[in-house]
Amino acid sequence: MKIGFIGLGVMGRPMVGHLIAAGHEVFLYRVKDVSQHLVEAGKALDNPKAVAEAADVIILMLPDTPDVEAVLFGDDGVAQGLAMGKLVIDMSSISPFATKAFAARIAEIGAGYVDAPVSGGEVGAKNAALTIMVGASEGDFERALPLLKLMGKNITRIGGVGDGQTAKVVNQIIVGLTIEAVAEGLTLAKASGADPAKVREALMGGFASSRILEVHGERMINETFDPGFRIRLHRKDIGLALESAKALDLYLPHAANLQQLMNKAIADGLGDKDHSALIKALS
Amino acid sequence: MKIGFIGLGVMGRPMVGHLIAAGHEVFLYRVKDVSQHLVEAGKALDNPKAVAEAADVIILMLPDTPDVEAVLFGDDGVAQGLAMGKLVIDMSSISPFATKAFAARIAEIGAGYVDAPVSGGEVGAKNAALTIMVGASEGDFERALPLLKLMGKNITRIGGVGDGQTAKVVNQIIVGLTIEAVAEGLTLAKASGADPAKVREALMGGFASSRILEVHGERMINETFDPGFRIRLHRKDIGLALESAKALDLYLPHAANLQQLMNKAIADGLGDKDHSALIKALS
Repeated sequence: MKIGFIGLGVMGRPMVGHLIAAGHEVFLYRVKDVSQHLVEAGKALDNPKAVAEAADVIILMLPDTPDVEAVLFGDDGVAQGLAMGKLVIDMSSISPFATKAFAARIAEIGAGYVDAPVSGGEVGAKNAALTIMVGASEGDFERALPLLKLMGKNITRIGGVGDGQTAKVVNQIIVGLTIEAVAEGLTLAKASGADPAKVREALMGGFASSRILEVHGERMINETFDPGFRIRLHRKDIGLALESAKALDLYLPHAANLQQLMNKAIADGLGDKDHSALIKALS
Repeated sequence: MKIGFIGLGVMGRPMVGHLIAAGHEVFLYRVKDVSQHLVEAGKALDNPKAVAEAADVIILMLPDTPDVEAVLFGDDGVAQGLAMGKLVIDMSSISPFATKAFAARIAEIGAGYVDAPVSGGEVGAKNAALTIMVGASEGDFERALPLLKLMGKNITRIGGVGDGQTAKVVNQIIVGLTIEAVAEGLTLAKASGADPAKVREALMGGFASSRILEVHGERMINETFDPGFRIRLHRKDIGLALESAKALDLYLPHAANLQQLMNKAIADGLGDKDHSALIKALS
């Protein structure tokens, strides 16, 4: 299949590699910093419009909402090169609200839209083991699924367009707040003179047990804060959660305070540390 | 062995039942509301002092710090009946600070002290499957262990006296804040129009996964808030966390706010619902 791929960062590079390895014909944009190997395997084009003209399915893996908007609807953007029956798959983590608006504009051209944000990080991208949360019509989901399966393992259609992004935002709320839960608990243990490693071990069998207590709890105890997932990136996602909360008149007090703690951590120079380093914002 | 057991509530009754079933001779205090079966199997005495005189090991399972203090050091209290070489095992969930002070006073008599708070609730008590977090000297721990094994499964010595209570407080912080994490996430999912059950399912494979997302997340989705563990009791434990935070000059912003959310939930009439009903304090 002819596939366009825009966004060749830490995540995008291994992801498009899996598509090339499966024999797909790949058209690329934004090839600076990309390995020569990838440029030779795919065909680098001058702008997103040219990618959309050449490909049947256009995949985006970009940093934030404004990047996706610019690539889709800016000068020489994807929208200008799309035609009836083509499919856009946005695998970036961006605003659920913007996603619904983008999809509506793409639908006017007669093309399909799938939001398919991922979790699992660079390791998941390299191992084609990403968790993928999908928002799309059933038909568009079926079309996207064979490609998504080349990049991920745990693939769930949550619902219609935008619901994939909502699920990702919910994931980031729960992950961030569970990190804070473990951080406050282990801070109390240490200050009380109880061995945090023993406490973590004792708690792993009960209702306090979580992947975060297991993995990030151990990081906090050993103070191994190399990323991982950077506090700076997680703050972006919590910003999306609070944007949704404002738009929907929701009361999310801990998510709101988590943003403040992340601001503090970043001000303290921890922005590029793993999000488990949030524990340092408590001391 | 001659065992005293004081505190025959929802937890204490099945716990002492396991000791009786194992053939121990049991002396009881506070037998009102206790089944006739239990009163016949154990020997009911008039006050804690008499229990301490009759037994070699005295187990407490009481609601809160003042109850333990009154039973130990009040008129006709345990301290008055203790003698050199006896052992107090406090399985209540109370203040780590008070615990250290109580243990020091008991040590003056020449008796041992073990704090051994539990998690696992009424079901864990009935099935002798409690998680038990122990603070004690190694010698006292070894003496207590055979009895604890009759009541629990996952038994960990965290450290010296008080460290068991600290671990329990940490457990309650992490459990409470993880419930709030899941509550805020699922509230956003629902308000955004994404199916919370689908979102929960998609998230269970990744870093957001926890026992709380599994069990309490399902309770929130189905709105099954019959206890379980009552918000009112959990608030008591968060109070212990904040008492420790104040004494140790710790910054635990989410634990502090959790108390406020629990106050709100209890004001709204949810005090005797399961702690997963905290999600209702967000709406």
